[in-house]
Amino acid sequence: MKIGALEAGGTKMVCAIGDEDGSILKREVFPTQTPDITMPLLIDFFMDEGIDALGIGCFGPIDPNKCSATYGYITSTPKLPWKNYNIVKTFSEALNIPIGFDTDVNAAALGEAAWGALKDCEVGIYITIGTGIGVGVCINGNPLHGLIHPEAGHILIRKMANDNYKGKCPYHSDCFEGLASGPAIEDRWGKKAYDLKDVPEVWDLEADYIAQALVNYILCYSPNRIVLGGGVMHQDQLFALIREKVTEYLGGYVRSDAIIKHIDEYIVPTGLGEDSGIKGSIRLGYMAYHNLI
Amino acid sequence: MKIGALEAGGTKMVCAIGDEDGSILKREVFPTQTPDITMPLLIDFFMDEGIDALGIGCFGPIDPNKCSATYGYITSTPKLPWKNYNIVKTFSEALNIPIGFDTDVNAAALGEAAWGALKDCEVGIYITIGTGIGVGVCINGNPLHGLIHPEAGHILIRKMANDNYKGKCPYHSDCFEGLASGPAIEDRWGKKAYDLKDVPEVWDLEADYIAQALVNYILCYSPNRIVLGGGVMHQDQLFALIREKVTEYLGGYVRSDAIIKHIDEYIVPTGLGEDSGIKGSIRLGYMAYHNLI
Ligand SMILES: Nc1ncnc2c1ncn2[C@@H]1O[C@H](COP(=O)(O)OP(=O)(O)O)[C@@H](O)[C@H]1O
Ligand SMILES: Nc1ncnc2c1ncn2[C@@H]1O[C@H](COP(=O)(O)OP(=O)(O)O)[C@@H](O)[C@H]1O
Ligand SMILES: [Zn+2]
Ligand SMILES: [Zn+2]
Repeated sequence: MKIGALEAGGTKMVCAIGDEDGSILKREVFPTQTPDITMPLLIDFFMDEGIDALGIGCFGPIDPNKCSATYGYITSTPKLPWKNYNIVKTFSEALNIPIGFDTDVNAAALGEAAWGALKDCEVGIYITIGTGIGVGVCINGNPLHGLIHPEAGHILIRKMANDNYKGKCPYHSDCFEGLASGPAIEDRWGKKAYDLKDVPEVWDLEADYIAQALVNYILCYSPNRIVLGGGVMHQDQLFALIREKVTEYLGGYVRSDAIIKHIDEYIVPTGLGEDSGIKGSIRLGYMAYHNLI
Repeated sequence: MKIGALEAGGTKMVCAIGDEDGSILKREVFPTQTPDITMPLLIDFFMDEGIDALGIGCFGPIDPNKCSATYGYITSTPKLPWKNYNIVKTFSEALNIPIGFDTDVNAAALGEAAWGALKDCEVGIYITIGTGIGVGVCINGNPLHGLIHPEAGHILIRKMANDNYKGKCPYHSDCFEGLASGPAIEDRWGKKAYDLKDVPEVWDLEADYIAQALVNYILCYSPNRIVLGGGVMHQDQLFALIREKVTEYLGGYVRSDAIIKHIDEYIVPTGLGEDSGIKGSIRLGYMAYHNLI
């Protein structure tokens, strides 16, 4: 079986051809311009590959609800040319195959659940900390939708007393994303994040915000494991700091050995390297083909 | 079909006999003393009723995971005689019928989903604000477990600048439950909560904390509807205040008509009055009988 996969991002579009085991046979990257310019290039990539289905893990917000009038749309994104764009319809008309469509982070969670660090997890969550912060949720192999889809990167957390930065979220200023995304770090400290590697205060504060959010996710989702990805997590000293602070904030409340004794295996990096999103998109295509979503 | 139901609380045990439509045929309440004293009374109640299954919605934390060595236990509760007590085993040996076992709030969410305000919700959440604060989550008719079960009453929220109360949670002091449970209100203001009806500051502050938590739940769970129950919600002026503050905190971020246009039908009181928990326990019994959990 051949499956097309698109990881649609605000700056680049990653296209791949894969199979039902999540192997990637071919891959190409296109810059994200307008739909008029970019969509034909993507369609060209998939057109003559003989794929049986396509999976799309997409920047958002999107509408992944098949019963909705705006199913398949990228909805209120700040990337204006893509706002209210029906990306599923365009692919569907061009390729005429089953299409799976979800958020980039739900796709990443599905990919990690199928082949990566969230295997065998009843509830698995994938968090990206990069240009934005997003949370994907996979429950018994299925993505969480509900009303629309989780937007848990924007939860309210507590600003630390020693942090005078106002926050970068255009909607909430100092929500989790507003305080802890890559651009928030760079704005607060006036330097590129990767040039701040040797400034411990930066990562201590960052780990605190990430830990607060993780504590809220642990209490809300009761996940069996948590995967942290995205550009900011390249600072891998963060993991130890985050694990320590999560334990502190939880105050012994969630009495599971997974957290109390094995937190190193509970809060982990991606199992699929940089490929959680694109492999998750393969999984979405597979699920669409087999009517699993 | 006759189904036994137990809503097991820290102060009282509500027993009922019901049917598969959630009708209650008989009900009796026992004070919660020690297992030695209380369990025989409960077993007596159910013994000769010819019930086909029993559902238990239980105070916690509990272990609802059938594959776990401590399945059926009340685990780390501060009610010491019940700590590490295997309540499922005792009933199972006495009654020899299928037993459904979950948290009181997951049961309430299931009850509301089957017969109340969460009907037709892909994701429905039930929040009780009483002696403690608990959140039950029902996704496609099933309770959410994962690692253990949600403990979302204990999420971190922001203390308001004008609130000097230190918080009442023994684990986290000023988590949501620590700031907003009934006992926290009474401790902060030095009066019984129902005697504070006419003090607007009390409910303005309370609504703010509840709204902060709801915003985080909306962003995490993406629920199709939210039910608020528990003793504190008898102050029904809270609903309008909460809805207004949720809208404010969300800052227009979740662009769904359900929230933007119809918030009165989005954040609602229980559909089953005071019976969400006991009817949800009937539902648990039904699900156990039919191997649905
Ligand atoms: N090595 C690094 N250390 C710290 N931060 C980084 C590093 N590399 C990238 N970032 C941050 O991550 C952001 C990009 O995140 P990334 O996950 O790669 O992309 P996106 O979120 O746009 O998909 C950048 O804005 C930068 O702030
Ligand atoms: N009418 C009321 N107004 C405000 N608060 C109330 C009212 N009735 C009860 N409460 C509060 O709710 C708490 C009891 O919550 P309830 O949901 O009835 O029980 P529990 O949580 O123990 O199951 C009390 O501690 C009290 O603080
Ligand atoms: Zn935000
Ligand atoms: Zn707490």
